[in-house]
Amino acid sequence: MAQHLIKAFEAAPAVNLEQAYARRPEQLSHLLHSEKITDTLTALAEADVYIISVSDDAIAGISSQLPFTNKLVIHTSGSVGLNQLNGKNHRGVFYPLQTFSKNKEIDFHTIPFCLETEREEDYTILETLASALSQSVYNINSAQRQSLHVAAVFVSNFTNHMYTLGSQICDENNIPFDILKPLIQETAKKINTLNPLQAQTGPAVRNDVTTLQRHLDFLQDENKKTIYRLLTQSIQQANEQKL
Amino acid sequence: MAQHLIKAFEAAPAVNLEQAYARRPEQLSHLLHSEKITDTLTALAEADVYIISVSDDAIAGISSQLPFTNKLVIHTSGSVGLNQLNGKNHRGVFYPLQTFSKNKEIDFHTIPFCLETEREEDYTILETLASALSQSVYNINSAQRQSLHVAAVFVSNFTNHMYTLGSQICDENNIPFDILKPLIQETAKKINTLNPLQAQTGPAVRNDVTTLQRHLDFLQDENKKTIYRLLTQSIQQANEQKL
Repeated sequence: MAQHLIKAFEAAPAVNLEQAYARRPEQLSHLLHSEKITDTLTALAEADVYIISVSDDAIAGISSQLPFTNKLVIHTSGSVGLNQLNGKNHRGVFYPLQTFSKNKEIDFHTIPFCLETEREEDYTILETLASALSQSVYNINSAQRQSLHVAAVFVSNFTNHMYTLGSQICDENNIPFDILKPLIQETAKKINTLNPLQAQTGPAVRNDVTTLQRHLDFLQDENKKTIYRLLTQSIQQANEQKL
Repeated sequence: MAQHLIKAFEAAPAVNLEQAYARRPEQLSHLLHSEKITDTLTALAEADVYIISVSDDAIAGISSQLPFTNKLVIHTSGSVGLNQLNGKNHRGVFYPLQTFSKNKEIDFHTIPFCLETEREEDYTILETLASALSQSVYNINSAQRQSLHVAAVFVSNFTNHMYTLGSQICDENNIPFDILKPLIQETAKKINTLNPLQAQTGPAVRNDVTTLQRHLDFLQDENKKTIYRLLTQSIQQANEQKL
């Protein structure tokens, strides 16, 4: 994430990336001039915002080691509370909600930034920063961000696992998984115009008992059978609550 | 589906839509000239292919009522076997794999057509027909089509339900579901370049026990808790098989 952000800030005219810290400066040498990189926390340059973009476990430690106080210090994590940052500085969160892959270029333009600050005047600074990268900026507190992270597990990690299960069924039956890709894209696109409860189709929501039973008979793998049963039930339950 | 197909065939220069049958012709009057519609099975015009595009339950009945034999008669269903068509005609299946909504225009161009015929010479006819609508045509037998239908439930119906569960979590925590939409689109796009097992991210596949437990503690609803546990387990299981 840090490297994606460095690239994006360097490309944003409204943002002046003063300096980057790295324990091993050579890791950033393909992104920044060497005079812009430091490996010494006590040599950090003056800035309006200090961004800690490291693994979740390392955030608290780094924030304690900072050699200054009363500056704006923020992290970029979806699952770490604002209060895990050391209280000697003004704290904030700057969380781009997206799934990142190291080798894939990121277009921040449409990625939602979830912002939180202790002080109102700091919010304006983060808002300016986020708006320089993206058109989509939200004020999200730590409790909301926690629930957002859980929701993201459902709509992204679990969804991707549904793709895995589908591809396993294809493999076992000598069907190219490619056949399902347009359906997958359309299913995702649909919720841009319908809410997902309205968009629900399939034998579960129709309570098409014959098809449901045929599918359960077809599935040999106990794990897939259990998931099929549980999600069918859950779809029907959500649908009843709707009515 | 029938109406989408009528529109697509009428627009395809390579296809001559001879006639459509409907019990209530006025239902098709916005699509076809009245002389092209009949409500009498015995008045069906000569054609190379007769397409039965009705609800699954009605396919066998209509195919028996046809007043001719030894013609090519096909249905468009994903979950009905070829052998449910009456054997007095040459049978085939012409199944566009996509999620259809009545009010949404369909671009058949990228939709996979799954074809099956009893006789080889009939396959060529269906291939010509499908190629007139789509660039993506597959030879899929009834057993494969059945498994494809199950796989489609996983990647489409169950995936959409993950969106529903995510949106419920958002609603309960006063977060606009819109924040998750770019993530949902990116998750779907990813599998165009990575296989879903490689694309898997999140606390389950990292076995990030702290986050998993925090998420389970956060979820109050028993149904969501059970789904979270089961899918986390299933992700880890799929990942172990990969290694």
